[in-house]
Amino acid sequence: MKIAIDAMGGDNSPKAIIAGSLLALKEINSQIVLIGKEELIKNELDNKKVDFKRIEILDAKEVVNNEDRPVQAIRKKKNSSMVLGFDLLKENQVDSFVSAGNTGALLTGSLLKIGRIKGIDRPALAPIYPTQKGFSILIDAGANTNCKPRNLQEFAIMGSIYLEMVLNITSPKVGVVNIGTEQGKGNKLVTEAYEVMKKSSINFYGNIEARNIPSGIVDVIVCDGFVGNVILKLTEGVAMNLTSMLKGVFTRNIMSKIGALLLKGGLKEFKSRLDYTEYGGAPLLGVKRPVIKAHGSSNAKAIKNAIKYGEIFSKKGVIEKIEQEISRIGVDNIEE
Amino acid sequence: MKIAIDAMGGDNSPKAIIAGSLLALKEINSQIVLIGKEELIKNELDNKKVDFKRIEILDAKEVVNNEDRPVQAIRKKKNSSMVLGFDLLKENQVDSFVSAGNTGALLTGSLLKIGRIKGIDRPALAPIYPTQKGFSILIDAGANTNCKPRNLQEFAIMGSIYLEMVLNITSPKVGVVNIGTEQGKGNKLVTEAYEVMKKSSINFYGNIEARNIPSGIVDVIVCDGFVGNVILKLTEGVAMNLTSMLKGVFTRNIMSKIGALLLKGGLKEFKSRLDYTEYGGAPLLGVKRPVIKAHGSSNAKAIKNAIKYGEIFSKKGVIEKIEQEISRIGVDNIEE
Repeated sequence: MKIAIDAMGGDNSPKAIIAGSLLALKEINSQIVLIGKEELIKNELDNKKVDFKRIEILDAKEVVNNEDRPVQAIRKKKNSSMVLGFDLLKENQVDSFVSAGNTGALLTGSLLKIGRIKGIDRPALAPIYPTQKGFSILIDAGANTNCKPRNLQEFAIMGSIYLEMVLNITSPKVGVVNIGTEQGKGNKLVTEAYEVMKKSSINFYGNIEARNIPSGIVDVIVCDGFVGNVILKLTEGVAMNLTSMLKGVFTRNIMSKIGALLLKGGLKEFKSRLDYTEYGGAPLLGVKRPVIKAHGSSNAKAIKNAIKYGEIFSKKGVIEKIEQEISRIGVDNIEE
Repeated sequence: MKIAIDAMGGDNSPKAIIAGSLLALKEINSQIVLIGKEELIKNELDNKKVDFKRIEILDAKEVVNNEDRPVQAIRKKKNSSMVLGFDLLKENQVDSFVSAGNTGALLTGSLLKIGRIKGIDRPALAPIYPTQKGFSILIDAGANTNCKPRNLQEFAIMGSIYLEMVLNITSPKVGVVNIGTEQGKGNKLVTEAYEVMKKSSINFYGNIEARNIPSGIVDVIVCDGFVGNVILKLTEGVAMNLTSMLKGVFTRNIMSKIGALLLKGGLKEFKSRLDYTEYGGAPLLGVKRPVIKAHGSSNAKAIKNAIKYGEIFSKKGVIEKIEQEISRIGVDNIEE
């Protein structure tokens, strides 16, 4: 297998992307294609023990920036690392594509260059959400800000399949984020989605309140992309805020510093539980080929894990399974 | 002044409600009316040093439960503590009304029994949101799950006035929760709301991402009630999850227990920063008389603070100011 990597995407590119790619090579069997400014990539690879049998470099003269407007970026920057990545993926020259670049452009590129799975109305971003029990998957985390009930149903189906096949969760429990647990609560979207979900073949738990998300009450957290984006970013913000407050507690005086020292092991474990880099990026579910969006601020470890999941995503045949399941249900059943 | 208190609302009623009311009497000048089952209330008051000059009891034969459907509860349970509270408020026999009971019923009762301020389309719940800097106000936290841009504008105006008058924040900064900060981002509601806000007399900061809410990036956090409810409950959930994980860190072995002991002072401060009971309930802004919704799981301290804010809410003339401001802008200007 072969994985294309956008070496120019993300806040720490190309350094962290290339470092992460080299780490990944130790844990995966695939070959990789680093796409980006050749000179920069070669400079990064110099002085490192690199097995060039498993690395290709594809020169890309342009870069899609975070400021670029998605559609324009994909249409105009034909020689960018992102667009060239999509080209390789589309032509089946690689098995998956990993990028930490401009999220909007990556979504647009996936739609314009790769296309949706037949029967899927809206592809969605599905990051892993760390919980007290382990992890859940959050779908959609920001690809679709205006959704219909059928979209939430698609999210539920795709998230369930990904969790089951890639992360080995049997019959994952699906919950719809709502302001209360009773049927009939909430806005038009979620009340109608509840009806559709109940009739689906998924393991539908029902409505969940945001309060219970962090404990891991369900495996698949379903919501529209606006709410999902708020959930993802707010969790990050609250955790950052609390850890920075805790840091203040630990460093306020000599006694507290000693206290913190005694707690070192446990605190390290605590920190690692909150570490998004463990889960390596979010699959974009619903497009015809495997695309993984890594966090914009990814470090080498996050990139390594994104690439690892990029390999499993393709190897396990998630997309084929989604295609089968959607065609089995019949597109008509999920039309409104 | 006189404050009516629903002695039967909330998970810990009537015990915590009455204990909180007695605490409040030490910090406020108002008289209070405890509404609920007379015998239960009298039993609670027995054996306590109570100044009966400042306490009235109003017997209520019925109780609105959390399972009751809002409209039915208000229409049918005419002798419930909640409905009797609204009656007192409506007849100007009290200056504000505090309840920790069924949120939906309280909202419905406010609309049916008290009514909206002229020019306000949708009243909203506005709890205090603890931040790194101190606190912000979150509006709407769940009263309106389907909103129009003009509703968000009303929320911004009402939240600003409350913060300024009750919590002494000069010219509070207003932000709209969105999936990105740039104008034009997000769903239809927030992109249109941005336009309306920009033209308003409020101190409009712009769009904010959920990641920056806990740091206190703005004073007034504006969103529809669905998103606001998710924000409020998720913050609670993440904080609960992290503190329970931390507890595990502190108690894992003898060394960590000593460590935790050395950190005691700082941890206490840390906990108090997360303590919603400090801020005492959420005003329902946009109705003609002061209504405060206390958290369903309120303890005595939370009730005490809710009552304190109930007094200030009325005393400062927040509602009159909202009326003036909305009539100054002109209802026409906020119609779509």
